[in-house]
Amino acid sequence: MAMKFSIALMIVMLVPTSALLQQPSPAPTPVIYSEKTLQELVELRKAALASDYAYRQTGYLSNNIGPRLTGSAQAQRSVEYVADEMRKAGLDVRLQKLSVPVWVRGQETGEIVEFPGMAAGTTQKIVLTALGGSIATPTSGLTAEIIVVNTYDELNGLGRDKVAGKIVLFNYKFDRELQASGFGGAAYGNAVQYRFGAAMAAAPLGAVGVLVRSAGGSQNRLAHTGTMGYADGVTKIPAAAVSFEDAEILAHLASEGKTRVRVTITPETRPNGVSYNVIGDLKGSERPDEIVVVGGHLDSWDLGTGALDDASGVAVSMQAAYLVKQLKLKPKRTIRVVAFMNEENGGAGGAGYFAEAKGSIEKHFAAIESDLGASHPIGILFAGKSDLQPFLTPLAKILLSQGATQIQSQGGVGADISLLTQAGVPSFAPWFSQQTYFNYHHTAADTFDKIDPKELSELGALMVVLTYGIANVERPLPR
Amino acid sequence: MAMKFSIALMIVMLVPTSALLQQPSPAPTPVIYSEKTLQELVELRKAALASDYAYRQTGYLSNNIGPRLTGSAQAQRSVEYVADEMRKAGLDVRLQKLSVPVWVRGQETGEIVEFPGMAAGTTQKIVLTALGGSIATPTSGLTAEIIVVNTYDELNGLGRDKVAGKIVLFNYKFDRELQASGFGGAAYGNAVQYRFGAAMAAAPLGAVGVLVRSAGGSQNRLAHTGTMGYADGVTKIPAAAVSFEDAEILAHLASEGKTRVRVTITPETRPNGVSYNVIGDLKGSERPDEIVVVGGHLDSWDLGTGALDDASGVAVSMQAAYLVKQLKLKPKRTIRVVAFMNEENGGAGGAGYFAEAKGSIEKHFAAIESDLGASHPIGILFAGKSDLQPFLTPLAKILLSQGATQIQSQGGVGADISLLTQAGVPSFAPWFSQQTYFNYHHTAADTFDKIDPKELSELGALMVVLTYGIANVERPLPR
Repeated sequence: MAMKFSIALMIVMLVPTSALLQQPSPAPTPVIYSEKTLQELVELRKAALASDYAYRQTGYLSNNIGPRLTGSAQAQRSVEYVADEMRKAGLDVRLQKLSVPVWVRGQETGEIVEFPGMAAGTTQKIVLTALGGSIATPTSGLTAEIIVVNTYDELNGLGRDKVAGKIVLFNYKFDRELQASGFGGAAYGNAVQYRFGAAMAAAPLGAVGVLVRSAGGSQNRLAHTGTMGYADGVTKIPAAAVSFEDAEILAHLASEGKTRVRVTITPETRPNGVSYNVIGDLKGSERPDEIVVVGGHLDSWDLGTGALDDASGVAVSMQAAYLVKQLKLKPKRTIRVVAFMNEENGGAGGAGYFAEAKGSIEKHFAAIESDLGASHPIGILFAGKSDLQPFLTPLAKILLSQGATQIQSQGGVGADISLLTQAGVPSFAPWFSQQTYFNYHHTAADTFDKIDPKELSELGALMVVLTYGIANVERPLPR
Repeated sequence: MAMKFSIALMIVMLVPTSALLQQPSPAPTPVIYSEKTLQELVELRKAALASDYAYRQTGYLSNNIGPRLTGSAQAQRSVEYVADEMRKAGLDVRLQKLSVPVWVRGQETGEIVEFPGMAAGTTQKIVLTALGGSIATPTSGLTAEIIVVNTYDELNGLGRDKVAGKIVLFNYKFDRELQASGFGGAAYGNAVQYRFGAAMAAAPLGAVGVLVRSAGGSQNRLAHTGTMGYADGVTKIPAAAVSFEDAEILAHLASEGKTRVRVTITPETRPNGVSYNVIGDLKGSERPDEIVVVGGHLDSWDLGTGALDDASGVAVSMQAAYLVKQLKLKPKRTIRVVAFMNEENGGAGGAGYFAEAKGSIEKHFAAIESDLGASHPIGILFAGKSDLQPFLTPLAKILLSQGATQIQSQGGVGADISLLTQAGVPSFAPWFSQQTYFNYHHTAADTFDKIDPKELSELGALMVVLTYGIANVERPLPR
């Protein structure tokens, strides 16, 4: 889960739409799911809870392949691996060629070289990481005084005189209480605007670089990477994230007196490369031309091994088709598993998929993406007409015993499918109470150990019920 | 808190000695504390809870001076700073010269260079840190296959054939459940034996290096440093700690097939240097020749800024004397604040202090050390005769409203005072429920933000009550 989707999260209307099981059912309607389909969904759910397929795939992608930044050898290896695995699962597989941005992290070090009370000849280390897309500093480092702001308003209030020649530290504090109440995504949305926009905002005032307090909940000296943006006509300046701790130390020292830092980051933006979406079809038996996309993204940030974000999303999507095949069930519509490339730093996979799909967008019956974590799912998010809700109610009932019964409407539910959503394709995602996801997301600690097998199996169960249910629904979805 | 003390923790007999306030008082005894002293203790506690002295000192040591590894410029700066602050507080200050080991961390990188499924040309990064005292690898790195063991028994069961030429990963798992129940120190004690002894155990079997799973509770990709040992006549091999996550990844990959790593650490052991214990006396009014030592250690590991371990211990010790002075109270015995040097990697400060003290050990009335954290204290630990307990009961009563009433006997209560303890000096320490300390201890995340001002004020209250109480006790302590 990267930038674009978080913007969607920021604008979500958090209107509780149902305490599903305490409300009377909607007025009698024509059949939504046949009895046969409902029975198959029960079987699929049971099979998902018993399967270790998604857990193993998540493990292989994160442990054996490792970080999968777009353009890396590991990303390419993951394309080949997932294509092979989809073939083994019995899908018709093709690779969709993409032109992708290639940004490569280099060395990165930071130190405080002047601060109140400093012992002569000493420095203090700063834990930092280049933000995705940033230009490099000189290899000998960028040394400048820091100036601390908490918001864009504070920055603009300072004006050019105070900012020119300095490195601006954006010290906006990730709202851990909001996260603790389950709304980690909202807390992220509030924080990530600084990660994305800091360089664009500070450069016009003459800043020579920006440091951004990590847009996550970790308090374990972990820097949180992610994309940042530049604007046409605005000077590009280097941008790095500092850990929570380093933001605290820097802000404290700067409040006491002149504080200068040396930041050295040496990332490179290389010419675009070639990569792929991996697309695997399980042909529909009645309406093969109607497509239900289900996917996650194959690329990850490079600091951790991208287990939560988003090997698990790819794995549960693959597992949905795998289980349908294993149980020898026949979806009415085509289930299309898509492992998207480049969600994190460019969105080339989502854009490339849409470019191909848009000519026949009416044949895209629905789109599902899992890119919000891999913990215990509490229900289903949807984007589109509010009339979609009754179509989810029977599915949520099947998920009752695992506690995944909440249904929630949201402006967008996944970055890779966002263009499909905007084009009117009914869109869905598993929904989580995000109380810990943003402690690991985009950091070095997004590793396979963070995946709880039982919780992942619940996610897998939700995904197969959602996917096969929508593929077999008896009526068209409102759009 | 470093190695030696953890050994003490390992051998602690966790015999609950009192549920203090539910038991009948011991039989009537002669007065232990005068009414005047008890009243003064109440005032001192109140003053401590209202004071920000210790919080500011902890902040200065950790933020403005930073990591204070023995022999570093920061350690020297902290000596000068603390001596100045003790003078400002009205103490008679002297520096006790010490010959200290100087070990300097260099570069450190690790990567997995061969593993099952690896994409050609890729590697995976390992988060590691050199253990204190380790020799360096070649600057081009040490590359070898890893072999994984969980215990020394497993290692010895493998024998030379399987170990020779390899890097042994000691994968003993820190017991997070034990920590969660409050016994972080015991969990640490169980784990730290591998950190300390791994190289000595593996080298005789022909291992070329060791990696040790971090001896702490962090699951945030943090490597946990600390001392390691070599033995005379045993080949020295490099030793580094890997994070929890990296231990998991390596163990998983090695379970699947040949896994080779490249480890590069370039620490240097330099000739011994000169450093100091900082000693500040507040002269006793009735028995000035009887000394109550109260202290913590000034040095820290170099990854974090040593706020928990142990700037806070030094700060609350200084504060104890500061408050006695501020309130213009007169301790009967001399209160001696000692900021010990080199607790973490050599113990030169504790040894040096004892070398000076041992000639008049009977004049060392008691010793107190705070080196077990800075969270809410639950009571007082003591080492020595069990008859010491009644001397603590009246103090614990004063601490009742802050919940610090437990009294517990333990074989040792602090590394710097351990030689005093062994020589019969009654010894004391604040006692904590250690549920989080070992998530930060010896890692980059031991930073000032981990100090809760309210909890630190409770610790300061306990320390001043304990220090002034013992300094004014009406009878000699059993020894």
